[in-house]
Amino acid sequence: MSDSKLIHGLEVAKHASRDSCWVVVNGHVYDVTEYLDKHPGGSQILLQYGGKDATSIYEPNHPKGTIEKGLPKDRHLGPVDPATVATPQKPQVTRDLDKTARIPLSHCVNLDDIEKAAERIISHSAWVYFRSGADDLRALANNRDDWKKVSLRPRVMRNVRRVDMRRTMLGTRYRLPFFIAPAARARLVHEDGELCIARGAARAGIPYCPSTYSTVPHDELARGHAATAAEVGDDTSELWFQLYVAHEKPRTLELIKTARDNGYKALVITVDSPVVGKREDDERYRAELATASGDDTVLTEWYRPQTSEDGPPLRGHHSSTLNWDDLPWIREAWGQHTGPVVLKGIQCAEDAALAYDHGVDAIYLSNHGGRQCDDAPSSIRTLLEIRRFYPHLLGKMDIFLDGWVRRGTDIIKALCLGATAVSLGRPFMYATAYGDEGVMKVIQLLSEEIETTMRNMGVTSLDQLNPSYVNTKILERELPDDLRFEAEWPAFKPKL
Amino acid sequence: MSDSKLIHGLEVAKHASRDSCWVVVNGHVYDVTEYLDKHPGGSQILLQYGGKDATSIYEPNHPKGTIEKGLPKDRHLGPVDPATVATPQKPQVTRDLDKTARIPLSHCVNLDDIEKAAERIISHSAWVYFRSGADDLRALANNRDDWKKVSLRPRVMRNVRRVDMRRTMLGTRYRLPFFIAPAARARLVHEDGELCIARGAARAGIPYCPSTYSTVPHDELARGHAATAAEVGDDTSELWFQLYVAHEKPRTLELIKTARDNGYKALVITVDSPVVGKREDDERYRAELATASGDDTVLTEWYRPQTSEDGPPLRGHHSSTLNWDDLPWIREAWGQHTGPVVLKGIQCAEDAALAYDHGVDAIYLSNHGGRQCDDAPSSIRTLLEIRRFYPHLLGKMDIFLDGWVRRGTDIIKALCLGATAVSLGRPFMYATAYGDEGVMKVIQLLSEEIETTMRNMGVTSLDQLNPSYVNTKILERELPDDLRFEAEWPAFKPKL
Amino acid sequence: MSDSKLIHGLEVAKHASRDSCWVVVNGHVYDVTEYLDKHPGGSQILLQYGGKDATSIYEPNHPKGTIEKGLPKDRHLGPVDPATVATPQKPQVTRDLDKTARIPLSHCVNLDDIEKAAERIISHSAWVYFRSGADDLRALANNRDDWKKVSLRPRVMRNVRRVDMRRTMLGTRYRLPFFIAPAARARLVHEDGELCIARGAARAGIPYCPSTYSTVPHDELARGHAATAAEVGDDTSELWFQLYVAHEKPRTLELIKTARDNGYKALVITVDSPVVGKREDDERYRAELATASGDDTVLTEWYRPQTSEDGPPLRGHHSSTLNWDDLPWIREAWGQHTGPVVLKGIQCAEDAALAYDHGVDAIYLSNHGGRQCDDAPSSIRTLLEIRRFYPHLLGKMDIFLDGWVRRGTDIIKALCLGATAVSLGRPFMYATAYGDEGVMKVIQLLSEEIETTMRNMGVTSLDQLNPSYVNTKILERELPDDLRFEAEWPAFKPKL
Amino acid sequence: MSDSKLIHGLEVAKHASRDSCWVVVNGHVYDVTEYLDKHPGGSQILLQYGGKDATSIYEPNHPKGTIEKGLPKDRHLGPVDPATVATPQKPQVTRDLDKTARIPLSHCVNLDDIEKAAERIISHSAWVYFRSGADDLRALANNRDDWKKVSLRPRVMRNVRRVDMRRTMLGTRYRLPFFIAPAARARLVHEDGELCIARGAARAGIPYCPSTYSTVPHDELARGHAATAAEVGDDTSELWFQLYVAHEKPRTLELIKTARDNGYKALVITVDSPVVGKREDDERYRAELATASGDDTVLTEWYRPQTSEDGPPLRGHHSSTLNWDDLPWIREAWGQHTGPVVLKGIQCAEDAALAYDHGVDAIYLSNHGGRQCDDAPSSIRTLLEIRRFYPHLLGKMDIFLDGWVRRGTDIIKALCLGATAVSLGRPFMYATAYGDEGVMKVIQLLSEEIETTMRNMGVTSLDQLNPSYVNTKILERELPDDLRFEAEWPAFKPKL
Repeated sequence: MSDSKLIHGLEVAKHASRDSCWVVVNGHVYDVTEYLDKHPGGSQILLQYGGKDATSIYEPNHPKGTIEKGLPKDRHLGPVDPATVATPQKPQVTRDLDKTARIPLSHCVNLDDIEKAAERIISHSAWVYFRSGADDLRALANNRDDWKKVSLRPRVMRNVRRVDMRRTMLGTRYRLPFFIAPAARARLVHEDGELCIARGAARAGIPYCPSTYSTVPHDELARGHAATAAEVGDDTSELWFQLYVAHEKPRTLELIKTARDNGYKALVITVDSPVVGKREDDERYRAELATASGDDTVLTEWYRPQTSEDGPPLRGHHSSTLNWDDLPWIREAWGQHTGPVVLKGIQCAEDAALAYDHGVDAIYLSNHGGRQCDDAPSSIRTLLEIRRFYPHLLGKMDIFLDGWVRRGTDIIKALCLGATAVSLGRPFMYATAYGDEGVMKVIQLLSEEIETTMRNMGVTSLDQLNPSYVNTKILERELPDDLRFEAEWPAFKPKL
Repeated sequence: MSDSKLIHGLEVAKHASRDSCWVVVNGHVYDVTEYLDKHPGGSQILLQYGGKDATSIYEPNHPKGTIEKGLPKDRHLGPVDPATVATPQKPQVTRDLDKTARIPLSHCVNLDDIEKAAERIISHSAWVYFRSGADDLRALANNRDDWKKVSLRPRVMRNVRRVDMRRTMLGTRYRLPFFIAPAARARLVHEDGELCIARGAARAGIPYCPSTYSTVPHDELARGHAATAAEVGDDTSELWFQLYVAHEKPRTLELIKTARDNGYKALVITVDSPVVGKREDDERYRAELATASGDDTVLTEWYRPQTSEDGPPLRGHHSSTLNWDDLPWIREAWGQHTGPVVLKGIQCAEDAALAYDHGVDAIYLSNHGGRQCDDAPSSIRTLLEIRRFYPHLLGKMDIFLDGWVRRGTDIIKALCLGATAVSLGRPFMYATAYGDEGVMKVIQLLSEEIETTMRNMGVTSLDQLNPSYVNTKILERELPDDLRFEAEWPAFKPKL
Repeated sequence: MSDSKLIHGLEVAKHASRDSCWVVVNGHVYDVTEYLDKHPGGSQILLQYGGKDATSIYEPNHPKGTIEKGLPKDRHLGPVDPATVATPQKPQVTRDLDKTARIPLSHCVNLDDIEKAAERIISHSAWVYFRSGADDLRALANNRDDWKKVSLRPRVMRNVRRVDMRRTMLGTRYRLPFFIAPAARARLVHEDGELCIARGAARAGIPYCPSTYSTVPHDELARGHAATAAEVGDDTSELWFQLYVAHEKPRTLELIKTARDNGYKALVITVDSPVVGKREDDERYRAELATASGDDTVLTEWYRPQTSEDGPPLRGHHSSTLNWDDLPWIREAWGQHTGPVVLKGIQCAEDAALAYDHGVDAIYLSNHGGRQCDDAPSSIRTLLEIRRFYPHLLGKMDIFLDGWVRRGTDIIKALCLGATAVSLGRPFMYATAYGDEGVMKVIQLLSEEIETTMRNMGVTSLDQLNPSYVNTKILERELPDDLRFEAEWPAFKPKL
Repeated sequence: MSDSKLIHGLEVAKHASRDSCWVVVNGHVYDVTEYLDKHPGGSQILLQYGGKDATSIYEPNHPKGTIEKGLPKDRHLGPVDPATVATPQKPQVTRDLDKTARIPLSHCVNLDDIEKAAERIISHSAWVYFRSGADDLRALANNRDDWKKVSLRPRVMRNVRRVDMRRTMLGTRYRLPFFIAPAARARLVHEDGELCIARGAARAGIPYCPSTYSTVPHDELARGHAATAAEVGDDTSELWFQLYVAHEKPRTLELIKTARDNGYKALVITVDSPVVGKREDDERYRAELATASGDDTVLTEWYRPQTSEDGPPLRGHHSSTLNWDDLPWIREAWGQHTGPVVLKGIQCAEDAALAYDHGVDAIYLSNHGGRQCDDAPSSIRTLLEIRRFYPHLLGKMDIFLDGWVRRGTDIIKALCLGATAVSLGRPFMYATAYGDEGVMKVIQLLSEEIETTMRNMGVTSLDQLNPSYVNTKILERELPDDLRFEAEWPAFKPKL
């Protein structure tokens, strides 16, 4: 191979606009001009790296092979002449801290401690990405505050010497009553990314449900998970597959195939994201970056509210058309006997009932960590709504929930009220900054808290829990009295 | 014209008291002695500039021609000798900031950001004027807090690819479900003042309802608005006319004629201001100014509570007699077919019902941005009162509301509960500090938030919204149980 | 008179203990040994000044002639030799501030401003005395917070040109619907003390009810009040007499005689103070003073809880036996036709009913400004209790109330719910630091606020107010459901 | 005795690991290797002092003779050569403060003041130990906040000259309606430790219930208590015995025998501690100590959730099997006529009823000062639960309660609602930092507050108190509506 094949850095630098945009990744030049508007992360970030080496930003945000597979071959322009480009920065996944500033993991005695510790070591952009929520963060605050509105009612004088924390989810009996929720982009905080989490789940015998946007490819995750299971001699843990239905059906089918081929046991379809929520910390951070790079356009043209049918969708590359009629073909692609199908993102009792009517195996109550619709209810509140308005659903299908679960007591509360199990996302992302040890620490802390709480409450098995162990009065006072609004408000006919 | 016609500055300076008060505006001398007690802004400010050049304070606070038209010709004393007065300061509409302190508009990702950004650049007196509220700011706080007491109930698994944000108000279908509320004195923050707002409304296809006290004359506003509409080729937007009924009927008739002659489409009569509220930040600021100018009188005579019938009204120059019997002559002056009549400032369900009985086309729920009666309810609370006690009013007439609307979610909540549309005042005043771009930014942000929220809630058209999409339980618990107090409290007969 | 009659300072200095305690006041030596345990302010403060000149502390805390009248003649030991004692400090009633730190009264636009301004100029001990409350200040906080739990319901489209703020209390029509509450020791903040207040009441045509512990004698107050009334040509205002029933009946009879002889129009008997509340700021301040003066005894003997019948009462020199059976002889001493009798300090609906049954002319709801029993209800809450459980009392007798009234809106709220009038204590004490001008400023501010609020609410006379003008739902949710506890809780029989 | 018998310090220093661990206490060497896992305070602290002189940490944490009695004789290795070990630090029970920083006890006018004063003088480890609570401190916060949700309803016009504060508990009439709650390790703050408290109780004529873990042996406590009673000539006070049922029955029987032999009058069995709560301040403090001593292990092996039956219990050395069937043998060991049996740690109405059914003499409502199960209800809330759901229990057995009692008003509230008496733990531990005087100060403050509150409420004897003296509406709104959950939620069958 002669040097004449190498592309000169100065040539690359010329292609830095919407008209022609080249980037260098791992020593190769790619023409992403036509891909600009298809990039899930937006065109802006691509334009920012137009004409430059983008390896440092590309690496922690994508599974290996993303660009090679995603971009047509004729847009692979060939290797860059390394002598003509600035040495790409190594991907920076943690802040540049001297060792003394790092809080020892042993000092973290609960999940909040781990979050605070992580804040000090992960990069600012990762921090902003993980912690951000929609609009005024009220859905986020609902998640956090509603747990506090439920109190416990401990029973005493019971033999609690032996405690069994096992719980059956989707037909399998796991070692603990929680699983690890989908959260994207773990390689922003640790170079092993989602692998740390998969290994932790395998060790602890609980399910892990990686995101569609896992920064470790799903096949690699499955292999890592299996290896650890073999190593510890316990195959209790399973992987589930979180699915963002894509705009294009073929892409969705491809994702389902990946899940099936790699032995993922359940298909967890996210239904709360027809558009990506307005996460303002993220937006503000990007606006500041743009200013710093000299790009400070406010309004390129006078804004017009959308009225045309075929305009580009606002934010995000998921399907905005996903509806109940799509379930049959998704189920068919997944296969009748592959495993259960779960809907993630149910936020009101009516949709819980609809899901049941459509025969899904389980529902997953969630407001997406407060990242989608602001002012959405917490999942524990939605669970109480189901109890009040559709009590017959309880026990008929599995009910999962997430949203600022931080304590063993939170988990006990959810189970008392009829949840099959809960899941946690952000705490595991923060813990991943400490690698495998961080992940195990989260599991250990929760396990110890569940065990302590069970004993303090006088129960020895999770199936002894029922509503008599909690006082939900404060939260119940905030539920609607009735769901039949049309009957309630006879004259209501909004005029348009 | 000989120099002997010019008035010497020393001569002007002699007239600086209640007995004789001259001011210089734009190079001309005016005798305002007899006008002192008629000045809507109070006599104190005139006396403060007595004997001096008042151009810098006059300019941003008045439409052009105010003094020429308002003062009898024989009080126009003629041009001042420019060599004998201090060069008038240029009107200062923004604070003297170095450029780095100015927050780029692109960094503002919501309306609160714009308010914070504006605080840094507009003059202190303007800031105090716009943000102030009555007494302890509790009505203001009600407005802000009550939105938070309503939560959303998002629906999932619906095709939300196409979203229609259009809304019909007063018979016209606009592009977005909000309009721009009346707020006076925009030239305090930008030299184009209300024109920026009118142009923004024209571009976005929404209504704008400038104040009686617009610092751009209403005819000029109408021309600017029409020009922009022509420029963008969209005549959806319309101007409405906010009317403060004046003490003197002829003045009121003159204002109505202005509205009619300049094509304003609706007459929005403010009914909540028989006296101007006690805005203490404003009062405190004026007291400090007075001290700084050596005038520190506390009590010129021992205060006696008002008992006489003909004493001067407390604060403000609006009618304190406006009542339901005035509606016929106002309607007649406006003309039967000129356009709809709206009452702005309804604060309880009973008055909503009375307004309907008196045949107005629409009511506008408002506590005047918390600037009038402290402890008044928020408009969303009044809307819930109407739902509870007069549900038959819903759908019979348009219902608008304002009061700390800052989010697309706020707008969706109001519409769910039966509001036709909402409006916003202060955010547009703050945005005007950034000129036309600021105004468009506010519209764009709200539009994107509405669109995102609609998709996240599973609706594609605003007429799909109904009370089942919100949980208002917290707010409902704070409503009166009953409006029939006399029946409720049998023994109540206050004795005097 | 020879010098040999003068007592030498060194002789005085020897008498500084419980065994023998002399003090110098205004140049005379007094033997207060036997008076130590009778001193209403406690023996500690006397001992602190034992053997010294006490003029500076005596003067602002006592009416003139207190010691001359109160101490037997044989304890008046004669004049001190002025050359042998340190020049007595002048009584310090305000802090030693340079003028610039003093906030101009004109900058105070509400009563809170006046409090803050007063804090900067009155002595620390006076500040602590006036602002302090019992225990954890929760009764104080109830007073402050409960006003905020009532919101207004303004009505619009009403002719409010003329506003009448007069109100009849105890049969007399005053100019404004409030009176000035008893509060002791005004000379701590101004040398004219209560006289400033009496003159202000006379000017404004409202009642003033000075404390038993007025630091201006009641006869002098009556003369000052009459003089001002004559001066302004308005005799609307009247003085009422606040009575602390004393331990000894003769002292009580003497006080009632003083009231009657000096033309006080009503007798306001305080019923909430059988013991003085635990005002901890005061106690802490005194403990710090004691330490500073070298006296730091914690426990002179091991504390034993009181069990004997004849032990000294805990704190305070009022009657601890006052009960319903005392009313007849008090009424007789006051005289059947002298004027009405009012009970001050009613804190629950049951006692309001008892007071009515005992034929008092009016009740005065109060928790003593939060200075007596902590966790006591606010008076507005007690008024709501009366409305709920004894509605037939309303209109049958006058009902007054006090407790953190700071706003015209507070007054309007109380009147809507059936109060005859309200009163204010602390604000007038703070204002007195600014003398007569301060007192008038408070009256003017309240008057303007009442007037503004009336207009904004659509009423022109206070007798138009009724419960439909307020929303009390939040406060009503906090009332007991029922007063019949015994019936409610069948098994309740506390065992002892 | 020749020097050859002395053990050399270098020899001791070799034994500093799990394999062999020696410590020096008061000049003697002990081999604690086999005791490591039996140490109630955990093995870590022993290992930390392995090979060293541990006197300074041992002394304030253990009753005298603990190690001599607890360790087999063959593990007493003999005296250390004092010249070969570092002089042991004197036990440090208070922080090293200069005198000026110490707040005089006379400045403390309430129990909060004493806590703040103690914080400044006791060692950090003691402070952390006493103030810490479980998890997020919400049970702790419930205790503190719920008192504030009850308000008082004072009655007036009653003769309150004589006040009787005596109260009968467990058949004995004490001088005040409270007793001193068990709290371990008083020698952490004062060298006389629990003796100060026992003497205070004896002087004041109230009961004291020392902890199983008293750092003064129970026999010595009994002697000290009796001596003081004799000295003051009042034998009203009694000692009660708090019992932690141990893992091994013989140890429990030994404790009961100690109680019986030393004349303890009641047996108070703690039932809320089958596992020790997660007190994170404590854990964090220990983690920091570990780091400082170079031991920073996070996970010695990968954590596995407990599933085996015979694993070591999580935290603490109390019985985790204690249940209703254990009561008979405990009662038998205690003796039928020795005295009453009390269950401490009842947290819900159902267990109160069960306790009654099992014939205990009294229940003691407590959430262990918020140190066990987070989100547990306050005891005043549990008392209200009993009133609502099992009112027939009231008056049938004594009901005690504790939990952030800090005020006379708190005590009055509890008694109004049916509590026999209350108790306080932490305040007495903080006061013990000031020795006997501190303890008496707490009793005096509470006594004066009770007395003042009684007079202010119009009662002269505690048996006059009933629910009509309190408004509990706010707290009642937060109680469950019903305890029959299974009936309420027909479909509830959690699936596992």
